[in-house]
Amino acid sequence: MDLKEKKLESTTLYEGKIIDVYKDKVLCPNGHISYREYIKHCKASCVIAKKDNGNYILEKQYRYPYDEVIIEFPAGKCDLNEDPEVTAIRELEEETGYKTNNIKYLGKIYPTCAYSDEVIYCYYADSLEVRKTHLDENEFVEVFEASYDEIKKMIRDGDIKDAKTIACFAFLEANK
Amino acid sequence: MDLKEKKLESTTLYEGKIIDVYKDKVLCPNGHISYREYIKHCKASCVIAKKDNGNYILEKQYRYPYDEVIIEFPAGKCDLNEDPEVTAIRELEEETGYKTNNIKYLGKIYPTCAYSDEVIYCYYADSLEVRKTHLDENEFVEVFEASYDEIKKMIRDGDIKDAKTIACFAFLEANK
Repeated sequence: MDLKEKKLESTTLYEGKIIDVYKDKVLCPNGHISYREYIKHCKASCVIAKKDNGNYILEKQYRYPYDEVIIEFPAGKCDLNEDPEVTAIRELEEETGYKTNNIKYLGKIYPTCAYSDEVIYCYYADSLEVRKTHLDENEFVEVFEASYDEIKKMIRDGDIKDAKTIACFAFLEANK
Repeated sequence: MDLKEKKLESTTLYEGKIIDVYKDKVLCPNGHISYREYIKHCKASCVIAKKDNGNYILEKQYRYPYDEVIIEFPAGKCDLNEDPEVTAIRELEEETGYKTNNIKYLGKIYPTCAYSDEVIYCYYADSLEVRKTHLDENEFVEVFEASYDEIKKMIRDGDIKDAKTIACFAFLEANK
């Protein structure tokens, strides 16, 4: 069966700072007409960084849509035309103060495939050097570290809910 | 440090079928004013269902924002006031034709914490009975099955990119 849909028309509903919103008219595989609402978002990177003591770097960050402080691996949006690996290195240093001298690609994830085109590139990093954080204006993060088993427990207990963070953990597990 | 932001004003930019879009004016912890663009989306459920032969049920589904057929565990949106466990049981049967007689909550994920309030509730199911699929109009899925090791390989090799699917795998790993 051909599962693909064909774009017939595209309407831009909103062009914002971090998201653009579209509604497209599509032709379904059964010949019916339907509509797809979706977000366009730039690429992003996420990095699971291991210290020499064996612990991993995590952050607590307030996330407005949930009105909640959540636990995440360091991550951020790619600048225009920026290689996602460069983003991962840059965001790790900006948000946590750790500069990596060894980074490895783990895989990419589609966070919300039904209504967004965002791709998050996931990396593993070690050989960390301590530098200085330099956060964006109006960006606030608390950095902490945890062992592999502590992270596993936080996922099991529901303390880690962020999808990219759980996916990075899964990539490490899948590569074991 | 108090990381929380305070809502000052909320503007509705778009009210759609599956997403609503907002832009809120917020007070940051440093006293600055900033703006947060975000999506409101209903809750959803995802289910990793194990057959008696040890294989897990997967789907191939065309996802318009990526113009790509992607591999996912069965999932779907919660109806208004529907318990996410009921959604998981319902969607599994509707999309794959398998009715579960044993379901267990694994955890919840926040797919895109920066710009959406969506929560996906993840479940494990077994004791499956074969029933009939009944897909929504203009919904097309191909059902297949794979072993745990095959799923692990698909994650490692980049054949599985869907965040909720990778997260469900991570929940199983974390509970081992």
